[in-house]
Amino acid sequence: MAKHAGSVFSVDVTGLDRDAGQPAYARISERIRTAILSGALAPNARLPSGRTLARDLGVSRNTVDWALDQLVADGYIVRRRGAGSFVAAQLPERDATPLRPERSRIIVADTAPRRISRRSEALRAYPGHYEPASSVPFTPSLPPMDLFPRDVWNRLLQREAARPGDDYWHYGASNGLPALRRAIAAHASAMRAVRCSPEQVIVVTSTQQAVELAAKVLADPGDRAWCELPGYPPVRHGLRSAGLEVVDVPVDDDGLNVAAGLLAEPDARLAYVTPAHQYPLGVELSLARRRELLDWAHERDAYVLEDDYDGDYRYVGRPIASLQGMDERKRVIYIGSFNKILFPALRIAYAIVPEPLIDAFVDAKHIADGHTGLLMQGVLAAFVDEGHLGQHLRRTRMAYDRHRQAFLEDSRELESWLKFGPAIAGMHVAAEFHGPAAGLDDLRVADGCVQAGVVVHPLSKYGKTQHGGLVFGFAGYDREVSRKRLTAIRNILAHG
Amino acid sequence: MAKHAGSVFSVDVTGLDRDAGQPAYARISERIRTAILSGALAPNARLPSGRTLARDLGVSRNTVDWALDQLVADGYIVRRRGAGSFVAAQLPERDATPLRPERSRIIVADTAPRRISRRSEALRAYPGHYEPASSVPFTPSLPPMDLFPRDVWNRLLQREAARPGDDYWHYGASNGLPALRRAIAAHASAMRAVRCSPEQVIVVTSTQQAVELAAKVLADPGDRAWCELPGYPPVRHGLRSAGLEVVDVPVDDDGLNVAAGLLAEPDARLAYVTPAHQYPLGVELSLARRRELLDWAHERDAYVLEDDYDGDYRYVGRPIASLQGMDERKRVIYIGSFNKILFPALRIAYAIVPEPLIDAFVDAKHIADGHTGLLMQGVLAAFVDEGHLGQHLRRTRMAYDRHRQAFLEDSRELESWLKFGPAIAGMHVAAEFHGPAAGLDDLRVADGCVQAGVVVHPLSKYGKTQHGGLVFGFAGYDREVSRKRLTAIRNILAHG
Repeated sequence: MAKHAGSVFSVDVTGLDRDAGQPAYARISERIRTAILSGALAPNARLPSGRTLARDLGVSRNTVDWALDQLVADGYIVRRRGAGSFVAAQLPERDATPLRPERSRIIVADTAPRRISRRSEALRAYPGHYEPASSVPFTPSLPPMDLFPRDVWNRLLQREAARPGDDYWHYGASNGLPALRRAIAAHASAMRAVRCSPEQVIVVTSTQQAVELAAKVLADPGDRAWCELPGYPPVRHGLRSAGLEVVDVPVDDDGLNVAAGLLAEPDARLAYVTPAHQYPLGVELSLARRRELLDWAHERDAYVLEDDYDGDYRYVGRPIASLQGMDERKRVIYIGSFNKILFPALRIAYAIVPEPLIDAFVDAKHIADGHTGLLMQGVLAAFVDEGHLGQHLRRTRMAYDRHRQAFLEDSRELESWLKFGPAIAGMHVAAEFHGPAAGLDDLRVADGCVQAGVVVHPLSKYGKTQHGGLVFGFAGYDREVSRKRLTAIRNILAHG
Repeated sequence: MAKHAGSVFSVDVTGLDRDAGQPAYARISERIRTAILSGALAPNARLPSGRTLARDLGVSRNTVDWALDQLVADGYIVRRRGAGSFVAAQLPERDATPLRPERSRIIVADTAPRRISRRSEALRAYPGHYEPASSVPFTPSLPPMDLFPRDVWNRLLQREAARPGDDYWHYGASNGLPALRRAIAAHASAMRAVRCSPEQVIVVTSTQQAVELAAKVLADPGDRAWCELPGYPPVRHGLRSAGLEVVDVPVDDDGLNVAAGLLAEPDARLAYVTPAHQYPLGVELSLARRRELLDWAHERDAYVLEDDYDGDYRYVGRPIASLQGMDERKRVIYIGSFNKILFPALRIAYAIVPEPLIDAFVDAKHIADGHTGLLMQGVLAAFVDEGHLGQHLRRTRMAYDRHRQAFLEDSRELESWLKFGPAIAGMHVAAEFHGPAAGLDDLRVADGCVQAGVVVHPLSKYGKTQHGGLVFGFAGYDREVSRKRLTAIRNILAHG
């Protein structure tokens, strides 16, 4: 009996041992379990000793013990003191065969199309967006990784992780770690003239999540939301996926054309805007438009979602204060993110919401995902409180400004084909085709650039504009690499 | 002029210095900015030297330098080599006054009710859910914190954070870190008989997020979803917040009553179930019901969301394989979570989806929040791959089983009032009122328990049942503390 068991192992388990990506102990216990369920290992069969198994399988004794412990805990084998391990005499009959798939690791390929929801179909129209972003420059809004002080961050990480108590291990408040909410309120007040208390801060994972929470709290399926055209596609999709209908509102040199919005859909529940630095055109929402927008929201019981995604970066003139800061009637949901100003893998952003809406937002966040991971919130709070955020912003502001100036200088060689928009803030600049490039298809040009190893976004990716164009991220501009890239773009434009 | 500037600082800045929760440099730069904007500091005014300011304000020279650097970067002050810092000669006129709130830290309280969405109103009916969960025992599904190997976790955290390269800093794939998807596929195959490849794994933050993504991918607003009654309230709210209508389907001793669901709404797009261990009743979905459910899904082009929230814990008999593993027709979205089996602050869970739906789920996750934070995914992958998950499950399974047995023994004193349901799996057990307690209001009883310092959930929190009752978490049972708590509950039950 023991012999029989041993032979099953030597055939099956070592065979599986080369499987990719499964811990050794799991491979072993799974194969023994399969052998038991298939009958290859009979009830009451004695298993080889742990030491023998370890030697035969070429794994550590610990690994074998874990596998066997697992099988004991699951009731497949029993240990008899002094006698060894045995297949259990009786596996509970009920459900046994039907519930056990014959081979748990064989996949029947089935890629026939399935019906998915209309909102999900609409999403599929926006291609390639889950590829990790790649190239700095010119991928817009991608921070260069080398400026972030990882050593400081990792020191804080280590310190916070070692903190005694359960604060970073237990469930947390859905609105976020109190220390981080205080730090965010202070930062947004000081830097962006936002008026708020820490209670108004809701910590989320991303701008996308903030937009979606706002959509759920403030609108029901079928309600309408204004979006800038051209504008940021993921936000449109987020609103649609929350059941809203998107109303396109054109952007001109003064930002969102509020009058056009009023004409198209005065009863929208929400307006999504990027007032400090329109994405992608780079214009700023004028004072007159800001007033019109806030008046509309007040009069129609609507709300404005202010996405201040790169408001910390302003290189020319006085920084433009937030729309939230000039709103006396509490109609603005202010959204900020650390994913673009620190590092994208972090996944911490925030919404600052009017007091009467706090509870509804906290509930919505709770239902969306409970709360955001706590340790990283604690590390970020320390990073802000101990002055590292200020220092990092100061350092990157100066670096991006240098990169911006170099980019503007070097990109003059493209001016015959491209008319550049404002480049006084943020991390990107948009340019429209003109002159000999006026009729070009920007998707084709951008494809050509990718072929040549240069990532640059086509303007039409952000929605229809009169002319095609290109959007350049300059934050990671680096003369040595980037000049060659600009020349490659020039050649593509010159040859249509 | 310099004198004047100095006096403004000594009055205003030091006054602000005691403000809570704002970094010192931000307080200083904000107050200087306010002084400039209000006119208290005139254009061209010379500021005291950094050293003088640092001394007068009682802060470090570094802090003052950051504050001044900030103001230089923002255009409020200029530095003249050898002469010091000066208020800028000209602040851009445009927008200056209106955009600047008078006092950025004074909040006008406004808590008048606002119109929120109907779905958000519905949520408000579920009270108190964003309070951090508190008490082990008897809060259901709360893992005891002391069993988790923090030292191992923190060692992996430190190692992974120090890894060179940008993998944990840059944007990641929306479906999750490849190493973690491989580890999850292996774990779910070995332990839960799930049939999948790593490509089918979508890493999310929580069961809630997995449910919501499924709702969006598979259903449009107004579509219907079956939910267990009694069942887990946050999932119902998540489905509603995605625009779906919830159809209550009763649970009996065999789990979800599929026939009742067919009668109520055969055309639902989704059914949410907890087959291994129904939440909260603790029953398991019978084989016959499993077949009925899968047949329904296949025939009606619907899908089953299998929430396997504590399927790793089974103490009596053979573990019940997942529903996903017996589904040949790819109608099951399998959902697992590490937040309950490792530690709640982690926020990593997963969905395992049929191949034809992979792309739609990845898109939905991308739009929901880009991707889940990467460092923690890397740490978790290492934790699984290096055998720590297996070891932790083995250790906790044994501990919880001991706690369960102690609880069952000690809770006999409540048997005159409470009829306990099955307690062979998971981390909780439900009990209905009977005998002298038959007519009691469980909300009132649970309130009384909280008054007495004991957290125990009223059964009616999970939806109407014939009798009221209580739900006990036993995973953290500790005889010394818990016996007293049981006696307190006994007294409350005995006195109605």
